[in-house]
Amino acid sequence: MNEATAPTENQPTLYLIPVGMSDAPLSEVLPEFNVDVIKRIRHFIVEDLRSARRFLKRVDKAIDIDSLTFVLLNEHTPAGDVASMLDPMKRGEDVAVMSEAGCPAVADPGALAVAEAQRRGYRVKPLVGPSSILLALMASGFNGQSFIFRGYLPIDASARGAALQDMTREITRRSTTQIFIETPYRNNRLIAELASRLPAELLLCVASDITGPGERIVTRPLKYWRTATYDYGRTPTIFLLYHS
Amino acid sequence: MNEATAPTENQPTLYLIPVGMSDAPLSEVLPEFNVDVIKRIRHFIVEDLRSARRFLKRVDKAIDIDSLTFVLLNEHTPAGDVASMLDPMKRGEDVAVMSEAGCPAVADPGALAVAEAQRRGYRVKPLVGPSSILLALMASGFNGQSFIFRGYLPIDASARGAALQDMTREITRRSTTQIFIETPYRNNRLIAELASRLPAELLLCVASDITGPGERIVTRPLKYWRTATYDYGRTPTIFLLYHS
Repeated sequence: MNEATAPTENQPTLYLIPVGMSDAPLSEVLPEFNVDVIKRIRHFIVEDLRSARRFLKRVDKAIDIDSLTFVLLNEHTPAGDVASMLDPMKRGEDVAVMSEAGCPAVADPGALAVAEAQRRGYRVKPLVGPSSILLALMASGFNGQSFIFRGYLPIDASARGAALQDMTREITRRSTTQIFIETPYRNNRLIAELASRLPAELLLCVASDITGPGERIVTRPLKYWRTATYDYGRTPTIFLLYHS
Repeated sequence: MNEATAPTENQPTLYLIPVGMSDAPLSEVLPEFNVDVIKRIRHFIVEDLRSARRFLKRVDKAIDIDSLTFVLLNEHTPAGDVASMLDPMKRGEDVAVMSEAGCPAVADPGALAVAEAQRRGYRVKPLVGPSSILLALMASGFNGQSFIFRGYLPIDASARGAALQDMTREITRRSTTQIFIETPYRNNRLIAELASRLPAELLLCVASDITGPGERIVTRPLKYWRTATYDYGRTPTIFLLYHS
């Protein structure tokens, strides 16, 4: 057996720890197992210090936050700083990555720590938790055998127009579900834009406040959204497009 | 408020219920909340009858399976049969969709029932659970801000060559992580094929037996995989490609 297939039970592990995305009780969105893992870990790589501490207190009030080490990994962190974040693993200790909300290392800088752990051959263990991308895809009714997540649409007008064209083409030619996000205060504007610029028969799924008390995941043709009244305010929302 | 933003608390709900992907204890992969939901539901749309019953017994031995209704929705089900599966919802009763493993309505026909529920304006509620696509992406260290899931690669030689080219192009031009699967008995052959046909500096992540006892998620350059010894046998495995 080589490095890639060798047993890894006794290796230090980089755990990827999902965090709730809403005020929903943690028992609604996280397996009990995650709590056991979290309580064993002494070293955390976090996107935001305050939300990380708050999350740990929600997991178990008995966790002694001051005995733990935290290092920040966010969009301001120089890439060169990431390697040393895994130093506890050299001593055989586990480390965990947490993002501000949802699953770490998808759409946040935590992926840099994972890439470094993979380069060094450490075991990486992702834990189950809420992902707005996946939950929205499940509930959209769209094609889950072929889908693309595009992050934010471009802001520049010509790049944005090209992205809209590209999405329409991939839906009609390849039946690939298109998933993307928007800065929350632009939710309503984005829906109006999609409704006015894309073919009326395409389906738009708007998935808002996922796992939260106001969760709403509705799929309707763009011709419906053209005349509908809606207000998604500043609620975190994810958008999906597909053909009918 | 219109149909899309109206409160939906008292509407019947289509629940999307994830199922374990391995023999791991359910408490490792499912939130406790899912158990409460499952125990309230009387009507199930399932991909496979035997595995659905087995899963429910694992959730709680006290569940009286014979008092529940099950309808099959798999790749052999005529699309015209789907509408009547939601009939209990006309009477105000909740219905649940379960796939054979993992999250329903992602890479299985459950999406047809979801699409029908969306057309009728019913509430659709996805529950958190294990997704091999998402867990593999988290643990790969690859770009989670832009990724595509392609399902199975084409078998036909020329379509397959085109898909490999297309993936390489999307990685280099757009930095889009490429995710795909293979029939398990072809795992080893696929790794050899990728290693010999694609640029040596691309990174391949092989994510095998996710959430299971033999879970292994390793990212290495293709030049490593060219000479490595490995045997993924017939274990369910998911593959990801990205640049270094």
